[in-house]
Amino acid sequence: MENQKSIFSKIIDREISAEIIYETDNVIAILDIMPVHFGHVLVIPKKEYKDFLAVPDDKLKEIFSAAQRIARALVKTFSLEGFNVFINNGEIAGQSIFHFHVHITPRYVNDGISFHRNLKKYEEGQMKEIAEKIKTNIS
Amino acid sequence: MENQKSIFSKIIDREISAEIIYETDNVIAILDIMPVHFGHVLVIPKKEYKDFLAVPDDKLKEIFSAAQRIARALVKTFSLEGFNVFINNGEIAGQSIFHFHVHITPRYVNDGISFHRNLKKYEEGQMKEIAEKIKTNIS
Repeated sequence: MENQKSIFSKIIDREISAEIIYETDNVIAILDIMPVHFGHVLVIPKKEYKDFLAVPDDKLKEIFSAAQRIARALVKTFSLEGFNVFINNGEIAGQSIFHFHVHITPRYVNDGISFHRNLKKYEEGQMKEIAEKIKTNIS
Repeated sequence: MENQKSIFSKIIDREISAEIIYETDNVIAILDIMPVHFGHVLVIPKKEYKDFLAVPDDKLKEIFSAAQRIARALVKTFSLEGFNVFINNGEIAGQSIFHFHVHITPRYVNDGISFHRNLKKYEEGQMKEIAEKIKTNIS
């Protein structure tokens, strides 16, 4: 069981469904199902690095370049004035899946969020709709 | 006044003092003077990109590679079980200096932090001491 693949690898292998908004040979991005705000994205290298420190140096550019592209698309999609990019490294820092991923969440004026509070829930169909909007804005 | 250099550029040019824990030709890292936890670091490209989206693609690797190296040093220095890496992009997302920087903060069990709450204050001399410890641990 220790070597069981991560939930993200199952998503990558299409064994579990997810709203995939971006994919290359090495990186995938999906909507977080427990969003800080709607449009909260996870950028994930396909290879299972357990955390930030386990990512090889030569893979960083592609991951963060993807994060930039997606952040730009979020700004365009939601007319954002701001967003946060963050990494939770270690369980006590909020990491729950030990397959490295970068969070990107929209922010809004006076939203009072502290990243993992006030989580929103997508209504039926809404998640897919927003995923589609974002996909069309990725350039 | 609009083209006045940032406080980070003044630190880079040694016009303002700071606890510099890492420096290369293109990147500098300093202790944040308003730390989430002691050892909270800012990793900063020397060139003044206003935010994450303004950083050229080919500069990402060096910045995040530096962040990795520094995070490793923080783990070693403070025997950390976890840390967060985060970017505040835009004023409403907590960005106060428009010269791009990446935050790295230690985390502790049940610290209840939400990144910018419960800020600590260094005692006189303590900041320098911790900076020195970290510097010796950067490999």
